[in-house]
Amino acid sequence: MEDRNIESKNHSKESPILMASKLTSREADYSKWYNELVVQADLAQHSDVKGCMVIKPYGFAIWERMKDVLDGMFKETGHVNAYFPLFIPKSYLSKEAAHVEGFAKECAVVTHYRLKNAEDGSGVIVDPDAKLEEELIVRPTSETIIWHTYKGWIQSYRDLPLLVNQWANVVRWEMRTRLFLRTSEFLWQEGHTAHETQEEAVAEARKMLEVYADFAEGWMAMPVIKGVKSENERFAGALDTYCIEAMMQDGKALQAGTSHFLGQNFARAFDVKFATRDGGQEHVWATSWGVSTRLMGALIMTHSDDAGLVLPPKLAPIEVVLVPIYKGEEQMAEIVAALDAIAEELKSAGIRVKVDDDDTKRSGWKFAEYELKGVPVRLAMGPRDLQNGTIEVARRDLKTKEFLPAEGITEKVKGLLAEIQDNLFQRAAERTSSTTRRADTWAEFLTALDAGGFVSAHWDGTGATEEKIKQETKATIRCIPLDAPEEAGVCIRTGAPSARRVLFARAY
Amino acid sequence: MEDRNIESKNHSKESPILMASKLTSREADYSKWYNELVVQADLAQHSDVKGCMVIKPYGFAIWERMKDVLDGMFKETGHVNAYFPLFIPKSYLSKEAAHVEGFAKECAVVTHYRLKNAEDGSGVIVDPDAKLEEELIVRPTSETIIWHTYKGWIQSYRDLPLLVNQWANVVRWEMRTRLFLRTSEFLWQEGHTAHETQEEAVAEARKMLEVYADFAEGWMAMPVIKGVKSENERFAGALDTYCIEAMMQDGKALQAGTSHFLGQNFARAFDVKFATRDGGQEHVWATSWGVSTRLMGALIMTHSDDAGLVLPPKLAPIEVVLVPIYKGEEQMAEIVAALDAIAEELKSAGIRVKVDDDDTKRSGWKFAEYELKGVPVRLAMGPRDLQNGTIEVARRDLKTKEFLPAEGITEKVKGLLAEIQDNLFQRAAERTSSTTRRADTWAEFLTALDAGGFVSAHWDGTGATEEKIKQETKATIRCIPLDAPEEAGVCIRTGAPSARRVLFARAY
Repeated sequence: MEDRNIESKNHSKESPILMASKLTSREADYSKWYNELVVQADLAQHSDVKGCMVIKPYGFAIWERMKDVLDGMFKETGHVNAYFPLFIPKSYLSKEAAHVEGFAKECAVVTHYRLKNAEDGSGVIVDPDAKLEEELIVRPTSETIIWHTYKGWIQSYRDLPLLVNQWANVVRWEMRTRLFLRTSEFLWQEGHTAHETQEEAVAEARKMLEVYADFAEGWMAMPVIKGVKSENERFAGALDTYCIEAMMQDGKALQAGTSHFLGQNFARAFDVKFATRDGGQEHVWATSWGVSTRLMGALIMTHSDDAGLVLPPKLAPIEVVLVPIYKGEEQMAEIVAALDAIAEELKSAGIRVKVDDDDTKRSGWKFAEYELKGVPVRLAMGPRDLQNGTIEVARRDLKTKEFLPAEGITEKVKGLLAEIQDNLFQRAAERTSSTTRRADTWAEFLTALDAGGFVSAHWDGTGATEEKIKQETKATIRCIPLDAPEEAGVCIRTGAPSARRVLFARAY
Repeated sequence: MEDRNIESKNHSKESPILMASKLTSREADYSKWYNELVVQADLAQHSDVKGCMVIKPYGFAIWERMKDVLDGMFKETGHVNAYFPLFIPKSYLSKEAAHVEGFAKECAVVTHYRLKNAEDGSGVIVDPDAKLEEELIVRPTSETIIWHTYKGWIQSYRDLPLLVNQWANVVRWEMRTRLFLRTSEFLWQEGHTAHETQEEAVAEARKMLEVYADFAEGWMAMPVIKGVKSENERFAGALDTYCIEAMMQDGKALQAGTSHFLGQNFARAFDVKFATRDGGQEHVWATSWGVSTRLMGALIMTHSDDAGLVLPPKLAPIEVVLVPIYKGEEQMAEIVAALDAIAEELKSAGIRVKVDDDDTKRSGWKFAEYELKGVPVRLAMGPRDLQNGTIEVARRDLKTKEFLPAEGITEKVKGLLAEIQDNLFQRAAERTSSTTRRADTWAEFLTALDAGGFVSAHWDGTGATEEKIKQETKATIRCIPLDAPEEAGVCIRTGAPSARRVLFARAY
């Protein structure tokens, strides 16, 4: 793939004030560190529209890679893409009771379809004559409009399964927002499938959970716990919500993807029945599943450090940057020519590279810049290297450097990229497991919670207890892990009997 | 590429009523033919939300291919993608006078951010307490929010050029809609670039026009006229609008893409200045350019016939379909095995194929189905073919068939796909040129218009005359072709002097 020039215009860095800026450390203020990193690494910024972000070219290039990989995985598992309307009639939302309850409080509502000039010349106003008969909701998720459409698509078992995905923007009005993690508008994909049987729908929901887990671990180098949500934490309208949960560096969990078994709820709400194999009529079984630009926040928080972004090579828009060190034009031309040759070789090996031969910036500035932007490998060459046939190889994850022969560097870099990808995953996996603690008493639970990380504890299975724990500690049940063994115990809060441990944590 | 299974669930075809349906012929009712084709070929359908369409999987797969190719072309010409908010504060829209004038009458307006349960239990209503202080407009195009953002990105000439593209949904409220051609919500890309000089911005606008023309001709097999719009037809806020115009089979023109030179209008409206190379301050020069799902309508209308969709191979989700003809399971297994082997070979050659071994449908039904869906090449094999080592090859564009040796069929098919791509372009080019007529008098003009196609005629250059002609004939100036030679003449309507011919047509 070509260097896409995605960060050749490094706007925030150009400004003299920000040029010298350093990030707040994670230890000093994790939340501030995150916000500064997202802005300074040119990933995203707040817009003037409350809760809506601008995803900048460098950030968007990372999202594009995520999207391309996920889209390929969806297609490999038999799904096709389609597109449904942005607007949902208000009445559709009301058809599934739990669903409207879950989303009504955060809906952007379109009430008019025209502006006009104010008669007093004060500017443009909403034209009161252009009021909609029925208000339209900007989709917070598309179950309702899609199931309304599926009614026309499904008549018989021969029309099933229906395996459709949509890439779209959605809006859920948020009062307190954070770039990527919680924004009023976000980008996502939403799969909506229809099946003949309950078993098949559950299998689909579980399969997509596996796809998400494979993507998180294999591409984002982010270890995840696969589990199922407690009733309190379920998607509005689902019978079961499967999820992947990841642990961030500050000890808080992040829900990275969800896959819902919807039972026949939406089929009933929108009257979608099919002729069964034995000539009957039955409501269709459904799933829906989604991941969003929130994954960008998870990616950033899983790997990055006080010097900036750290990216797993498989998702880095630029895997290797080549920086010349020189004095004078003649030296520059020679070194850049040597780097260009290496870059060509790397490209032929399928590696995404960039040669930064911008003469208006110093190499030291470039080093800091690519560190901040998380480019996994940096190759630098000076006049002495050129003479000696060597090159400096720096890896972003460990911040180590070594001088190697320029000859055969492509193979070395290929190995290094694989090693970095692996190291990032291992590092995060060790952190996750070392901060996952068992608690068998309320005191142990509180101590473990305050230490950060997942707390594996017994719970009596009631929503009331779960809510009480949440009120008292801000911790929620992140999931009941799919691989949780049966183990008799007593609830840490009420002492009532419990059949298995669940994972608690404070969360994003 | 894999067969994506995009049309294995042929919903509209499954229904007994539609199964036997035939399209209205183009001659009988072109508009009806188009609407029926779009729905029956599973490309798109109307939703219950006024003016918003559902793009079905098969239609979306075509759009995805268009998008992928265009995206690659944008990146090759140095552009990067980003994402800007869906919502635009009402006040932004007002900052550029011509712009607000152009879009105010078709804006979807968000006024509230919450629903609540009605106190009388009648359902969900808009919460009057959740009224926005300033209304938000669902973007009809993003110049205003993007230029507001660019103010923070551009300080110096070193930040220029800024070459950004966005893939997004936009909304322009329409009272009369047609699938793909005119919908309230549509999908598009919008490029927004910023430059140091007028020359550079004009060159960018022209370059992107060339990209669009190359895509239209090289991929869609749709010949286009490159030109510039008259003042009346310019984009709201542009100094010049370049366009590509295509001629449909019914003699009406379709604007397929536009590229605008915006001068310094938006930079002035949003106060975007840069430090020039000689130490001064100047407003930035801008372009914007876009194509949309309207291209789907153009693609359909350029090539399709009374039997259904005709797709150029380069954009067809399935280039070759393989259909077995058999009696009984044993015969089927043998023939399908032979077809699978051929399909593998075709796939290895980079051809998108599908083997339709669905045992619940007859081969005759399948033939009609893939004809309706525009699959460029159909290979069919029966028991005698299997014995003789032959295969039936049918091409969709000419509806011809021949029997060929199965051995070496891959090379043959490769050549055939290229031939079909070329034939579609030539056929459309001949139609376009044979229906482009010169008119030197008002009578000639009216006759030519009624015959359909472009009319090349002299015009006095005034908006008033243009408007008069439009009122009297419904014809508009589609463009002043970029290659129009200087030629002294007199305006067909007013007799006033004219320096060159322009192209008139009735249009979509």
